[in-house]
Amino acid sequence: MSYNLLKGKRGIIFGALDENSIAWKTAERAHEEGAEFVLTNAPVALRMGTINTLAEKTNSEVIPADATKVEDLENLIEKSQEILGGKLDFVFHSIGMSINVRKGKHYTDQNYDWTHKGLDVSAMSFHKLMQTLYKKDAMNEWGSIVALTYMAAQRVFPDYNDMADNKAYLESVARSFGYFFGKDKKVRVNTISQSPTPTSAGQGVKGFTGFMNYAEKMSPLGNATALECADYTLTLFSDLTKKVTLQNLFHDGGFSNMGVSQEIMEAMEE
Amino acid sequence: MSYNLLKGKRGIIFGALDENSIAWKTAERAHEEGAEFVLTNAPVALRMGTINTLAEKTNSEVIPADATKVEDLENLIEKSQEILGGKLDFVFHSIGMSINVRKGKHYTDQNYDWTHKGLDVSAMSFHKLMQTLYKKDAMNEWGSIVALTYMAAQRVFPDYNDMADNKAYLESVARSFGYFFGKDKKVRVNTISQSPTPTSAGQGVKGFTGFMNYAEKMSPLGNATALECADYTLTLFSDLTKKVTLQNLFHDGGFSNMGVSQEIMEAMEE
Amino acid sequence: MSYNLLKGKRGIIFGALDENSIAWKTAERAHEEGAEFVLTNAPVALRMGTINTLAEKTNSEVIPADATKVEDLENLIEKSQEILGGKLDFVFHSIGMSINVRKGKHYTDQNYDWTHKGLDVSAMSFHKLMQTLYKKDAMNEWGSIVALTYMAAQRVFPDYNDMADNKAYLESVARSFGYFFGKDKKVRVNTISQSPTPTSAGQGVKGFTGFMNYAEKMSPLGNATALECADYTLTLFSDLTKKVTLQNLFHDGGFSNMGVSQEIMEAMEE
Amino acid sequence: MSYNLLKGKRGIIFGALDENSIAWKTAERAHEEGAEFVLTNAPVALRMGTINTLAEKTNSEVIPADATKVEDLENLIEKSQEILGGKLDFVFHSIGMSINVRKGKHYTDQNYDWTHKGLDVSAMSFHKLMQTLYKKDAMNEWGSIVALTYMAAQRVFPDYNDMADNKAYLESVARSFGYFFGKDKKVRVNTISQSPTPTSAGQGVKGFTGFMNYAEKMSPLGNATALECADYTLTLFSDLTKKVTLQNLFHDGGFSNMGVSQEIMEAMEE
Repeated sequence: MSYNLLKGKRGIIFGALDENSIAWKTAERAHEEGAEFVLTNAPVALRMGTINTLAEKTNSEVIPADATKVEDLENLIEKSQEILGGKLDFVFHSIGMSINVRKGKHYTDQNYDWTHKGLDVSAMSFHKLMQTLYKKDAMNEWGSIVALTYMAAQRVFPDYNDMADNKAYLESVARSFGYFFGKDKKVRVNTISQSPTPTSAGQGVKGFTGFMNYAEKMSPLGNATALECADYTLTLFSDLTKKVTLQNLFHDGGFSNMGVSQEIMEAMEE
Repeated sequence: MSYNLLKGKRGIIFGALDENSIAWKTAERAHEEGAEFVLTNAPVALRMGTINTLAEKTNSEVIPADATKVEDLENLIEKSQEILGGKLDFVFHSIGMSINVRKGKHYTDQNYDWTHKGLDVSAMSFHKLMQTLYKKDAMNEWGSIVALTYMAAQRVFPDYNDMADNKAYLESVARSFGYFFGKDKKVRVNTISQSPTPTSAGQGVKGFTGFMNYAEKMSPLGNATALECADYTLTLFSDLTKKVTLQNLFHDGGFSNMGVSQEIMEAMEE
Repeated sequence: MSYNLLKGKRGIIFGALDENSIAWKTAERAHEEGAEFVLTNAPVALRMGTINTLAEKTNSEVIPADATKVEDLENLIEKSQEILGGKLDFVFHSIGMSINVRKGKHYTDQNYDWTHKGLDVSAMSFHKLMQTLYKKDAMNEWGSIVALTYMAAQRVFPDYNDMADNKAYLESVARSFGYFFGKDKKVRVNTISQSPTPTSAGQGVKGFTGFMNYAEKMSPLGNATALECADYTLTLFSDLTKKVTLQNLFHDGGFSNMGVSQEIMEAMEE
Repeated sequence: MSYNLLKGKRGIIFGALDENSIAWKTAERAHEEGAEFVLTNAPVALRMGTINTLAEKTNSEVIPADATKVEDLENLIEKSQEILGGKLDFVFHSIGMSINVRKGKHYTDQNYDWTHKGLDVSAMSFHKLMQTLYKKDAMNEWGSIVALTYMAAQRVFPDYNDMADNKAYLESVARSFGYFFGKDKKVRVNTISQSPTPTSAGQGVKGFTGFMNYAEKMSPLGNATALECADYTLTLFSDLTKKVTLQNLFHDGGFSNMGVSQEIMEAMEE
């Protein structure tokens, strides 16, 4: 199925590791909808994943970039414009990592070097990306920048650890930079707050399967999948959403506005 | 421009009065995108406006309905399914009216009969509409119901009068009913919180032009137009947003997340 | 324990039915803190409850008033000022009732006459109360008006039925009227969003006990009691919170900002 | 005026620089209300300010601590308990600093070393403080931890620069750590989001005076002062607010829930 929704649009997609990645699905769907784009990920992620399969499938080139390094981002943005033949219409940021989570450090027992490093990768990278795009004037007017986030930025999910604070920072950066990008360049900036999704990254969070079940029971339409998130992201890249900006948009089957569901109440009573 | 985004979809559109109406633009764009639909409005509004022009342009029939009367809604929903040849995929609610505003009663000096009547028209009508759709099982799975609202539901705009409270009620109905519509029928329900828009209804609010200018200066991308709102609404009717539900979605050039803008600060200093 | 926090302050307290009522506890504690006040409730509630016991204990008079009738409110406010010897410093609104809930009508099968009546009692009464206070200029500067609400105004609790929409309306009225009361009279208006509380009214909601347990497990500090709510309310009547206005304040052991708790996850796994 | 609201309570107060500081007023008022506490600030701030005057006035000792250094916090917390003779009942965090702001770097042209340093001082310090208190089991049950924040965490104030993102991180830390502190230790954690206040720190923000005037015009009760903030903070330290936790509480004369005020509309029209 294709609507040619992104025909003629050029972009950069961060964070496609393997076929479970939301960024992977986004790239596949963006390709179907007529977009051309460059794929990128950190060098270490490129070695672990299977991005070349995606690149072939979508006629895309892959440019490695560590999103915490401004010089890498500069190179990526310059090369992407050369390859694609013009300024960019969309950028997708799907990057997140907590060393405290990986190493099993509890939220009340953080290693602060790791906390800083996780923030740098997961959230400050989004500022660095936008600052580089802004300084290079690399976005077309009415372009669209989207980052993935999670509701732990607003509410407590105990196992989400310091990623909660990283996502709160990321969402704030979207608003703060979105103001200047909107006013000066007519570019919109939003975050999508997605259901728990069984990506390779998501599955690394403690108790993930139990939590997926909980979220499924809490959400009137059930959890949103990676493919559905890709579809939703495309609407934000399209010309149909030009005046949506500075928003954090929940894509979660309704979870975010639930207090309790009948299914949870029933499960509790058993 | 058309993407065939709504090809094969059937719906009902409330509230197209004249060519300034958001519902009018929504009908035009839905038609371009391949949808078939029935137009409706209150009998008195049908006499005042020019809806037949729109009906011809979009090959639509017009069925009068007072949205505060359940029997009118029942008739509308039955007839619409007959005309369109099946269950509905989308419904658009763009109805609002405050007698206190019309008659110049200040918010601190309400006539409560008028307050009740305005609530009935502007907000309880949305419950009545959904209850009738639900009882008649008139929506297809993964259908989409959207109502228009305004940010006065969250924040104070002194001249918006009792419409603020009506919109708060409307948004609550969207969440409350959206839960049951999602769980039982796989239908999503959302509200769009739109920029101040120079429709015939909007212009009735005191000091509207001054307020439009203020909102324009506050919004990094400027105010969203009626046509842009129509485009955004289409994305919510499409198959690309299936897991978005119970949300209040701001379509306002970023106003909703602004504290103050540079332009407002400069205007204040003059 | 007493701090003389409300010494010399005069007020009106709505909604004390019996000793489980939050308003009852508020009256007891306000008395201990040095306030003088009038107690009021609807005539039918006065017959059902034991308010005279409270009146004796707190040296208060009881004035019956149907809060949906402006003339009753006028009489109440006039008499209260006579009895107390001056303008009012605080008013407490704890009124709520849904006929749809009482009669067992599901949210998707409302009787709209009952819906209107419930709104009138539960929410529009708050506007009527404030409009009467405002017109009669009955509040002292830096006075404080507080109404009780519930988080169903923001998030879905399926059994809360049309009370969710009533509370959304009530909270909007607090903001809308709070603006004019603040600007014109220097009076603050806030709502307290309280934990589920085993009052006579609360216990009427379907599945209340199960829900209490759920909320207890979700809240890091456990549910807030009626007495704790009374204490919190006193802080909002005191001179220590003069610049807090237009706010909806959660008093709920932390529930409102929880996504999920460890105890809920564990209960789900059993 | 004293209610003995904090009689017998022990605490630590961070961030009193000079008599304009909110922390300074908080210390004075806490002393009047019967609390005993230790004052602390970074060594460099101690040299710049006049904290010894405050220490004498409130019979307090001063312990220097760089809040970014865990060993300084450990020393502070140990010494404070020795001096005060027991565990702590309250802790007040009023710390914030952006090098990008100080050095005049625009938000779209950040120096990321400075961004990291500002985050460490302004926000991660709050995690470090709570982690140290938690590990040392230094808080009494039903103790209270409060940090100061600003609404730029939710909405865009262009001149607030990277402090907006720092405050978003701080508020997230309050929720995330507040969960564990509540569940494990029965301690509440909240943030107060205060009006713009002419402290030495506040006045360092570009265009501060113009912004103070704007906020004054927007707020129905006007801006909240440092002294009023101190009063409000005391209520959160008191036994009257035991079940308030994980909240971000606006203390701002109503600004946070305003869309526009009549005075702003009038100022714009001139």
